[in-house]
Amino acid sequence: MKKTKLLILFLVCVHAALAEDGYKMWLRYAPIPTSTLLQQYRRQITGIIIYGNSPTLRAAREELNTALPAMLQSPIPEIKTLRNGALIASPLSSLPSALKSIAIKEVQQLDSTGYLLLSTTANGKQITLITAKDDIGVLYGVFALLRKIQTQQNILQLKEWSSPKIKLRLLNHWDNLNRYVERGYAGISIWNWHTLPSYIDQRYIDYARFNASIGINGTVLNNVNANATVLTSEWLLKVAAIANTLRPYGIKVFLSARFSAPIEIGHLSTADPLNDSVRAWWQQKAKEIYQLIPDFGGFLVKANSEGQPGPQSYHRTHADGANLLADALAPYGGIVMWRAFVYDPKATDRFKQAYEEFTPLDGSFHSNVMVQVKNGPIDFQPREPFSPLLGAMPKTPLLPEFQLTQEYLGQGTHLVYMSPLFREVLQSDTYSNGPHSTVAAIADGSLLHHQLTAIAGVSNIGNERNWTGHPFGQANWYAFGRLAWDHSLSSENIGKEWIQQTFGCNQATDTILSMMMGSRETLVNYMTPLGLHHIMGNGHHYGPAPWSNHAPRADWDPVYYHRADSNGIGFDRTATGSGALLQYQPAVQQLYADSNKCEDKFLLWFHHVSWQHRMHSGRTLWQELCFKYNEGVMGVRHMQQQWNNIKQYINQEQFHQVSQLLALQEQEAVWWRDACLSYFSTISRLAIPVGMEQPAHSLQYYQQLHFPYAPGN
Amino acid sequence: MKKTKLLILFLVCVHAALAEDGYKMWLRYAPIPTSTLLQQYRRQITGIIIYGNSPTLRAAREELNTALPAMLQSPIPEIKTLRNGALIASPLSSLPSALKSIAIKEVQQLDSTGYLLLSTTANGKQITLITAKDDIGVLYGVFALLRKIQTQQNILQLKEWSSPKIKLRLLNHWDNLNRYVERGYAGISIWNWHTLPSYIDQRYIDYARFNASIGINGTVLNNVNANATVLTSEWLLKVAAIANTLRPYGIKVFLSARFSAPIEIGHLSTADPLNDSVRAWWQQKAKEIYQLIPDFGGFLVKANSEGQPGPQSYHRTHADGANLLADALAPYGGIVMWRAFVYDPKATDRFKQAYEEFTPLDGSFHSNVMVQVKNGPIDFQPREPFSPLLGAMPKTPLLPEFQLTQEYLGQGTHLVYMSPLFREVLQSDTYSNGPHSTVAAIADGSLLHHQLTAIAGVSNIGNERNWTGHPFGQANWYAFGRLAWDHSLSSENIGKEWIQQTFGCNQATDTILSMMMGSRETLVNYMTPLGLHHIMGNGHHYGPAPWSNHAPRADWDPVYYHRADSNGIGFDRTATGSGALLQYQPAVQQLYADSNKCEDKFLLWFHHVSWQHRMHSGRTLWQELCFKYNEGVMGVRHMQQQWNNIKQYINQEQFHQVSQLLALQEQEAVWWRDACLSYFSTISRLAIPVGMEQPAHSLQYYQQLHFPYAPGN
Repeated sequence: MKKTKLLILFLVCVHAALAEDGYKMWLRYAPIPTSTLLQQYRRQITGIIIYGNSPTLRAAREELNTALPAMLQSPIPEIKTLRNGALIASPLSSLPSALKSIAIKEVQQLDSTGYLLLSTTANGKQITLITAKDDIGVLYGVFALLRKIQTQQNILQLKEWSSPKIKLRLLNHWDNLNRYVERGYAGISIWNWHTLPSYIDQRYIDYARFNASIGINGTVLNNVNANATVLTSEWLLKVAAIANTLRPYGIKVFLSARFSAPIEIGHLSTADPLNDSVRAWWQQKAKEIYQLIPDFGGFLVKANSEGQPGPQSYHRTHADGANLLADALAPYGGIVMWRAFVYDPKATDRFKQAYEEFTPLDGSFHSNVMVQVKNGPIDFQPREPFSPLLGAMPKTPLLPEFQLTQEYLGQGTHLVYMSPLFREVLQSDTYSNGPHSTVAAIADGSLLHHQLTAIAGVSNIGNERNWTGHPFGQANWYAFGRLAWDHSLSSENIGKEWIQQTFGCNQATDTILSMMMGSRETLVNYMTPLGLHHIMGNGHHYGPAPWSNHAPRADWDPVYYHRADSNGIGFDRTATGSGALLQYQPAVQQLYADSNKCEDKFLLWFHHVSWQHRMHSGRTLWQELCFKYNEGVMGVRHMQQQWNNIKQYINQEQFHQVSQLLALQEQEAVWWRDACLSYFSTISRLAIPVGMEQPAHSLQYYQQLHFPYAPGN
Repeated sequence: MKKTKLLILFLVCVHAALAEDGYKMWLRYAPIPTSTLLQQYRRQITGIIIYGNSPTLRAAREELNTALPAMLQSPIPEIKTLRNGALIASPLSSLPSALKSIAIKEVQQLDSTGYLLLSTTANGKQITLITAKDDIGVLYGVFALLRKIQTQQNILQLKEWSSPKIKLRLLNHWDNLNRYVERGYAGISIWNWHTLPSYIDQRYIDYARFNASIGINGTVLNNVNANATVLTSEWLLKVAAIANTLRPYGIKVFLSARFSAPIEIGHLSTADPLNDSVRAWWQQKAKEIYQLIPDFGGFLVKANSEGQPGPQSYHRTHADGANLLADALAPYGGIVMWRAFVYDPKATDRFKQAYEEFTPLDGSFHSNVMVQVKNGPIDFQPREPFSPLLGAMPKTPLLPEFQLTQEYLGQGTHLVYMSPLFREVLQSDTYSNGPHSTVAAIADGSLLHHQLTAIAGVSNIGNERNWTGHPFGQANWYAFGRLAWDHSLSSENIGKEWIQQTFGCNQATDTILSMMMGSRETLVNYMTPLGLHHIMGNGHHYGPAPWSNHAPRADWDPVYYHRADSNGIGFDRTATGSGALLQYQPAVQQLYADSNKCEDKFLLWFHHVSWQHRMHSGRTLWQELCFKYNEGVMGVRHMQQQWNNIKQYINQEQFHQVSQLLALQEQEAVWWRDACLSYFSTISRLAIPVGMEQPAHSLQYYQQLHFPYAPGN
């Protein structure tokens, strides 16, 4: 018998060793190793009952049937009658009346998609009940329970209910129809349009499972730099096949719509939003879409931005354009998400343009239009102040857009946990309706009682084995979903959940969490400390290029943003400068207006200050800049040490993978530091302090590096 | 105890169910289910001894340590002393003298890379010995033994030795530096150049394992439509990192060289092969490469073909070009593989051009040049006669090139087992040195005693989870490697090996084998029966387009190849036509010269025959054409039935995956049949016979289909 037990242990180990290629992400359902807890779970869950049989309930059943036997290392049968250890997963309406009466009070407090987990007694049997108003809530509840088991929590006395704070929790795929992903660092698009609609890749189903497990309930399939072909009848069949696959998991499909589609595929001579033929074309197209996809979510539009067509080409406003599409979708319940990411090469400060163009339109958008606003005023930099547009359009539901793909945060190779970035923005107080007017309160509609509420994350997903390229990129997908459901969750708790589901529950958890929690600040330090921004290479956005000054547009050039000269560095956006700071509420202006009081981390966003400017640390700006860049490099080295310290707890393949990536990150952090300081040193005419690591190469060396095949460009 | 056994069974099943995403291909090492056999294996192999410790032997050790415990479901320790069941894997020179004397006779018969498997007795212990002249032979022997266990063969009385028939067994990757794979249908390139050399993806190691397991020992990393950047110093570091990773597995790295590299990256004004600066540049480049990669294999070159630069731009010959590079590589033992795939839009018959350009050069190539010849005279069609160049350059070592990626054979979605195609060509008798002058005898050097021998397969590998997109694409990679090692193996045996390793040893094997064995003929029938060729869509080569007649070059147009008119169809390549047939030996000419005797399958390759031409079946050509197209469609439907019949033996995910692909293949087979017959019907003015399925659409419908985002273009 002892030998047999050893064999079982051996088999469990073989299983664990084999499964770690990252494909399963946080739904690994690894065997529970702790013996006492395992026995407890086996007593708690002895069989499954699901009342009802919708596609969503079948998905819930399948997930339980996959997860529970794997984790509990024991078959968990479906049963017909209540017994001790019965796990019941059903919507309230399908429950037998005895069970219904137990749960009804809590379920009534849920919204239509929330869930209730309840340990209770029925017919004298100890049972666990997962219920909800609707089937999708049951599926969310199933994932919530599985999360508890994967993270080895006690499930003896469950009484937990949860509804999402934000209604639409969206991924935005910047995926082209040829599968190239703009700003993609994890292979090509998972959407294999060529084989759709006939072939449904298992990845589509797993994608749905992962998203449902964290509450994502909408996805925009194609790039905002959109191709009208996706709206042709042939391609809509492909879109419908994806929609059919995602639907059981509560995920609606959206499309990026190219504004000039009526010309390109409709063969009209104009796309003018006030033209009757154009209106009729979109109405017909909407009708066609909804015949194929009755729950189609709607359109995302990037218009009159970076060369995309839009209503301004016809001297119409963004509102005219958005309302055109919104009116076509309205009969079917669809919405338009109109992006506010606009900027003009002629503008004096790109920072200001979205606000200037959009605030005058507040009140002109039809009721099924949302305006989608990037989290910061420029473009997903490692750190940005929140966009001043957030809070500045009270009559319009606003939808914050985050970027999960790490375009400016180390792309595919840097370990950066972005939850602290998301939280920093979501918790920012816009003061737009008095104190506590946070970005989160705008997103969840609580501030101004908007009914349409949404949040979007630009996907970091590709067809690499582990979905996100860098294994820690999975944490950003995970954290975005969890925060979209409940923005009050802490980055620490989300991180811990993710770690335990991804790497197992062991003594490495705290170390990994510590690596993750510091990682974003570390990256800010070695890339863009003290409020520097947009100083990366042009086009591919890979690596440092603060010297770059000959892009096709000035506002794509780093020198436009850092404005370093012999006197100092930074962009004066106060009243004496571009005035962008005046776009914020006075209470926010107060935080940043005085260069002596402004937090270091935003200093160069708002001020051009002398190289000798005295920082809060007591160092001069130049010294502080050197110090921060160096701190960034040291931060990466510290992560390397931390990772090495937990080697014994990590699967060998994954350990080696992350070790290599951290080594690459260290090289690139040094590169960023040395290239930037070499350059700024020539401007400031100040030397990098003695005692600090000096650049290994000349400035010319860094300047001549080029990367013709950098990914995602 | 019974409960425990059930639990073990359960765990084994969970393991099996989890592992089937295709990533592990034919090295799954699934638990041996048969109890008697399992006990036997456990007695036969109780411990491992490896004498020696090179990287290659470490790879062998790691493979055994991965495979044996997984298959035998029992730890197999490394041991120090002989015991019953010891498995010894070491080169002869490292063996203790007692073991050495047992094996020396057989090992002496091996070439430097062959292996010996021997069940024997030493010191009174029953042992299994894997040995070889060199470490790589040991690794090959390890894989051979593991193959036997995976296919559940008896290993009690092993006495087997094997050396490869062809020395260089190569994959050619048509992978661009931006990871786009020309004619790639399995995602993007596995070579992530951007993160090289710092990051070694586990895929590179697994790629090496898969290749070593079938004897592949060389790989050309980049597309023959080459980019000179790969030869820059920066990129050579990346190449070296891959070479270092593949080296322990006996795989040499080669590069496709762009002939104009001296201009593009060397900043010379010419790439003239007789120019001293050009010669010096290549010599210096070779020196640089070999400093980084001491065992670098050499260059593959596509020159003066489809727009690629080459020596003819300087009025030099292919030999001048090849010798230039060969001279640069010669001091280091490198070789040049110069492709004979050339054709000129002005030629009257593209079929003839490679022969016409290359045969006059026979004898002018330096001794480290091979000429690489596509298997057929045109371009990897579903069926081609062997290239007449094979056998026509006796003084030059020729290297046949096959295409594993299914550019013309259903791309990523059709189940086509290509071993019968490879075998058909390899067994073709060129009569170039009398009877039995097969293509295989040219490739293995036995015909004319060439020392340089090689065979190349254009890779079907990408970064999709299962490497090849279609799960049965793996079989083509596998079969190519096995045939490259030993071209006398039968397609049936290779297929069976692959099936059992991939799907397990069960009652489905024969059915799957039957599906595979008929699949290529089925595809020929629904795409290009009776010797039709090159009638696919232009550019992407996806789908039928026999009507197509306005490509940028006439010899890219289907009408150039089928020549259908009101009288008949086919390309007269006899003496009364283009005369291409005269490029073959008389004995071959005899096979094809008479349209009444020519095998049906090559008829339209060599003859323009009347629609009323009487076929061997007794039908007219037109009837036969309709019959064959229909037969192709029915063949796919038969595969669908066969697959459905074995559902119980196949992992659910894989079953569903292949079912969907077969359904898509059926749709596309119907499309090929109906589009081609609709078109030819308008030319022949003959109707598709009553009783046969009629096209669902008009010819115009098929003609207006377009595929702007078809993959691999």
